[in-house]
Amino acid sequence: MNAPATLSAVNPAKLLREQIRAGRHTTVTTGMAPRHLQANLVILPADWAEEFASFCAANPKPCPLIARSEPGDPALPSLGYDIDVRSDLPRYRVFRDGAVVSEETDITALWRDDLIAFALGCSYSFEAALLDAGVPIRHIEQGKKVCTYRTALDTEPAGRLHGRMVVSMRNFTVPNAIRAIEITSRFPRVHGAPIHFGDPAAIGIADIDKPEFGGEPDIRPGEVPLFWACGVTPQAVIEAAKPPFCITHKAGHMLVTDRLNEEFREA
Amino acid sequence: MNAPATLSAVNPAKLLREQIRAGRHTTVTTGMAPRHLQANLVILPADWAEEFASFCAANPKPCPLIARSEPGDPALPSLGYDIDVRSDLPRYRVFRDGAVVSEETDITALWRDDLIAFALGCSYSFEAALLDAGVPIRHIEQGKKVCTYRTALDTEPAGRLHGRMVVSMRNFTVPNAIRAIEITSRFPRVHGAPIHFGDPAAIGIADIDKPEFGGEPDIRPGEVPLFWACGVTPQAVIEAAKPPFCITHKAGHMLVTDRLNEEFREA
Repeated sequence: MNAPATLSAVNPAKLLREQIRAGRHTTVTTGMAPRHLQANLVILPADWAEEFASFCAANPKPCPLIARSEPGDPALPSLGYDIDVRSDLPRYRVFRDGAVVSEETDITALWRDDLIAFALGCSYSFEAALLDAGVPIRHIEQGKKVCTYRTALDTEPAGRLHGRMVVSMRNFTVPNAIRAIEITSRFPRVHGAPIHFGDPAAIGIADIDKPEFGGEPDIRPGEVPLFWACGVTPQAVIEAAKPPFCITHKAGHMLVTDRLNEEFREA
Repeated sequence: MNAPATLSAVNPAKLLREQIRAGRHTTVTTGMAPRHLQANLVILPADWAEEFASFCAANPKPCPLIARSEPGDPALPSLGYDIDVRSDLPRYRVFRDGAVVSEETDITALWRDDLIAFALGCSYSFEAALLDAGVPIRHIEQGKKVCTYRTALDTEPAGRLHGRMVVSMRNFTVPNAIRAIEITSRFPRVHGAPIHFGDPAAIGIADIDKPEFGGEPDIRPGEVPLFWACGVTPQAVIEAAKPPFCITHKAGHMLVTDRLNEEFREA
């Protein structure tokens, strides 16, 4: 039994991962352990791994690579010494030949010696910085999910990997939009500054009221939508490139790491 | 007579100031000594100086104070060891009771023991950074003056000083607008990020095609106007607050300093 003095030093990210690993938390990680970096996950067989690493290097805004595992090793020690990517996310999507075949809360039974895990930065980190700076985020105020959209913007292909960019949207007054660009530009390893603002049609979004994920947005007069490259983009790429096997996180069900968001702020 | 070895080390800002001081350059300093910080100038009697310093502190975007002189001393040694603010700008505006009474190319005859000079950062510094980053600026490409506008935005008053903000406008494609916000946010001492983008009417500009200074802008489909707080704002404040005596630079006819723009980039 732990003494109170020990409890006070407990890492909230590690505690949350333990809950997730034990199957006691299977929903989104939004707003949990808020000072800790959360990450998108992509697991691919080794014969696709170098192409995926190249894809990330060519597309740093949607795919800011922050860690990769050794082949067959489910650990990501640079993000947390005890991380096991097979059990530490609340929900996974399993792809075969580019199609989702199941959702899982644990992928230990699917693990193979040739799998490599990639962790990518996530916008939750810059959302924390926006809130800290007093820039309100409507969907968080309303307890909703962030809206994401498929766009007509092609990613930079790498080998067999190609596809279109997925974006997340947050709407602001113009002064707060400027602040949001300023602040997120300081976080290049968690998507950085937006890739677009204003007219959704300019990036191939036909109807801003119909996001791919998330509910109908609440954009008020005088507000402008800002669009950030999203870590769900690799899932659109997997659908387009159809590798025989792939596992990702499910949107919003992230890897919660021991690293702090502030470590990812540029000077 | 200088030897060539000496000439090669000559400071282009100092050379330009010498030309101006000798009356051989009396037009705008736009694009000259482009790596050097240029500054807006405001000269006020000592009994208005503390209010003006407070006004700058309260309005750092239009009035980023970078140096002030001692009373009666026309030097600004932190900006250049030989600067004489009475002769080193190509053109001045003299205000009495808030109205322009003359334009001068030298104000030595008007100098008084109670005058204090203030130098404020200027957008030429961030324009150089934008061009260095490959972000094109239409009015520079076309060899025109930047467009400036009076707005309905009140400045923060300080003592007897009050008035509305003047802005400068540059138009960009949306991706370049995002880059421009990112880059200029790193230069808080030369106006920093824009204060507005998009709808001119939102800040009280009735007709964007009719700037206060500069010609008709060339804003193309898909481009967005960005508005930066402008160092001409103090001249609007002088008009509103009507101090008995004031001298400023004339728009575009700046103090060219020995300091480098890069010294004013934040880490």
